[in-house]
Amino acid sequence: MTITNLQCRLAQRPAPGLPDPSIWSFTEETVADEAPDGQVTVEVLYCSLDPAMRTWLNAGRSYVPPVRVGDVMRATGIGRVLTSGAEGFSPGDIVSGLFGIQAYAVLPASQPRQLDAAGLPLPVHLGALGISGLTAYFGLLDIGKAKQGETVVVSAAAGSVGSVAAQIAKAIGCRVVGIAGGAEKCRLLVDELGLDAAVDYKADGLNDALKAACPTGIDVYFDNVGGAVLNAVLRNLATGARIVISGAVSQYNATDAGIGPTNYMNLLVARASMTGFVIFDYEDRYAEGRAQLAKWIEARKISPRTHLVKGIANFPAALNQLFAGENTGKFVLEVAEP
Amino acid sequence: MTITNLQCRLAQRPAPGLPDPSIWSFTEETVADEAPDGQVTVEVLYCSLDPAMRTWLNAGRSYVPPVRVGDVMRATGIGRVLTSGAEGFSPGDIVSGLFGIQAYAVLPASQPRQLDAAGLPLPVHLGALGISGLTAYFGLLDIGKAKQGETVVVSAAAGSVGSVAAQIAKAIGCRVVGIAGGAEKCRLLVDELGLDAAVDYKADGLNDALKAACPTGIDVYFDNVGGAVLNAVLRNLATGARIVISGAVSQYNATDAGIGPTNYMNLLVARASMTGFVIFDYEDRYAEGRAQLAKWIEARKISPRTHLVKGIANFPAALNQLFAGENTGKFVLEVAEP
Repeated sequence: MTITNLQCRLAQRPAPGLPDPSIWSFTEETVADEAPDGQVTVEVLYCSLDPAMRTWLNAGRSYVPPVRVGDVMRATGIGRVLTSGAEGFSPGDIVSGLFGIQAYAVLPASQPRQLDAAGLPLPVHLGALGISGLTAYFGLLDIGKAKQGETVVVSAAAGSVGSVAAQIAKAIGCRVVGIAGGAEKCRLLVDELGLDAAVDYKADGLNDALKAACPTGIDVYFDNVGGAVLNAVLRNLATGARIVISGAVSQYNATDAGIGPTNYMNLLVARASMTGFVIFDYEDRYAEGRAQLAKWIEARKISPRTHLVKGIANFPAALNQLFAGENTGKFVLEVAEP
Repeated sequence: MTITNLQCRLAQRPAPGLPDPSIWSFTEETVADEAPDGQVTVEVLYCSLDPAMRTWLNAGRSYVPPVRVGDVMRATGIGRVLTSGAEGFSPGDIVSGLFGIQAYAVLPASQPRQLDAAGLPLPVHLGALGISGLTAYFGLLDIGKAKQGETVVVSAAAGSVGSVAAQIAKAIGCRVVGIAGGAEKCRLLVDELGLDAAVDYKADGLNDALKAACPTGIDVYFDNVGGAVLNAVLRNLATGARIVISGAVSQYNATDAGIGPTNYMNLLVARASMTGFVIFDYEDRYAEGRAQLAKWIEARKISPRTHLVKGIANFPAALNQLFAGENTGKFVLEVAEP
């Protein structure tokens, strides 16, 4: 039986702004019956969809090299071993790795990681137990140094990283205010995630709403969005505040220079810091992070949320939906049913 | 003999931008023959002129309360005790304190501090051994954590704080690049302060010049100016860089929202931090800072520089000269010859 791979490739670099569908091309390739020696062929089941993907499409410097024109789009995924040419992997094994947006990935055996699903749905391992959850964990606790009793504000709090960061902050005893777009997401933050308050950044009076929700000022701000929200937070810092720069989803598609944090001099007034980090630097501590996150999930302190979109052909549209904020929780592409 | 005090008062709050002379008024008052009980009358000799003074003129929140309309303009000074109504002070003592822009200050005895001139010209105690030098010391070493062998960039490097910060960085074995406006100041940075390189922010190609002067990237940036210079530095950070926000002289007179650090997402790429501080938080460590600064001055590692302007009547113009960057070293108003 011939197995055909379907691949989504970067055909050309996007212009600034939301990527046009024309930047993508789809190719088909025959998959070899057996994985080459030392390699593994993986049937991809799920791929993680991340705002950072937008930055990988540009030629410029970022924390990882850009995706090259002509290459399969880079993506983290979960899959099932189809054939193995290497010790340590057998057909049927569930694995995670950098598989790309394609139906089958053929990789050196050094690349995939055996995944213990631990009784949880597979997409959770791309979300609360994946890079999203680890980003929330190390960003909030290691960079932000959030402590019990402090006021923590999280932007994109209904999103993949933000929803975990906000729930971790609740788990350790912080007063937690989530920022999200629209009344429905704000309702979800309070009613379903159990946050102390929610602020709708699309409504008028962002600054006043933040001030009302954080009467003693903001001790830790976990920022996923940048732009006007970051600027409003800067006006409401408590003394000694820590701002964690985890992302800037409002700026990734900016067509001009973008909005800088004009109010940054409040860092001086508040004796505050603003620190960027890249989760890959924490690789040697992932196991620690995953173990703690799994405990919180088991104790129902963290409710993992997944937003599934099906089919490789829908990847280009799904990526743009991500920037429109149409997801709550982790946005995952289901490449094949498990 | 009747002694008359001359005082410069804030008559009205300035509009955004460089303060118009009309915001100031001058008043005369008779000074009592004897200081009241528990108070000290000081003949003011020198006053420190600082960019931060501009922020004190606005009604808005800052790290100290604004100067109230009608009050004598706030200023740190050095003076000589004229009459004393308190233990611990005698006529002729040299003291420092928050005297204001006036010829004579009458203060509670708790306020002035006895000054040991230690054989140095009095203005040095407002500059390299005053708040300027302490700001450089704690900002560079405590907030910036500059270490031997690192590349340190200092903006407004010919100014009061910057010139000391740059010389401290040289003293501890850093590669030091100063940023200043104009060829003459840049010459001074290299030839007289001994810095490794100087970059003229008024010349074209700021980013390229910085890149050339810092081939391995910038480890510590001591920022006194903000604006376009901060933005260019953000493009040239080394991994793990620390940006110290000491001031933003380019923004104090901004008539619009000002220029934010649009490139702040490079904090993420470089795993870098940007931290504000206020020197008054270090009050219990001033003695440590002054002792070390005095050692460096004695060892000629730090050459204190003073830019003197004479006469209270010249204060309004001098403050605006400060923003035009017309000084090198510490800008001091000589109220009376010692």
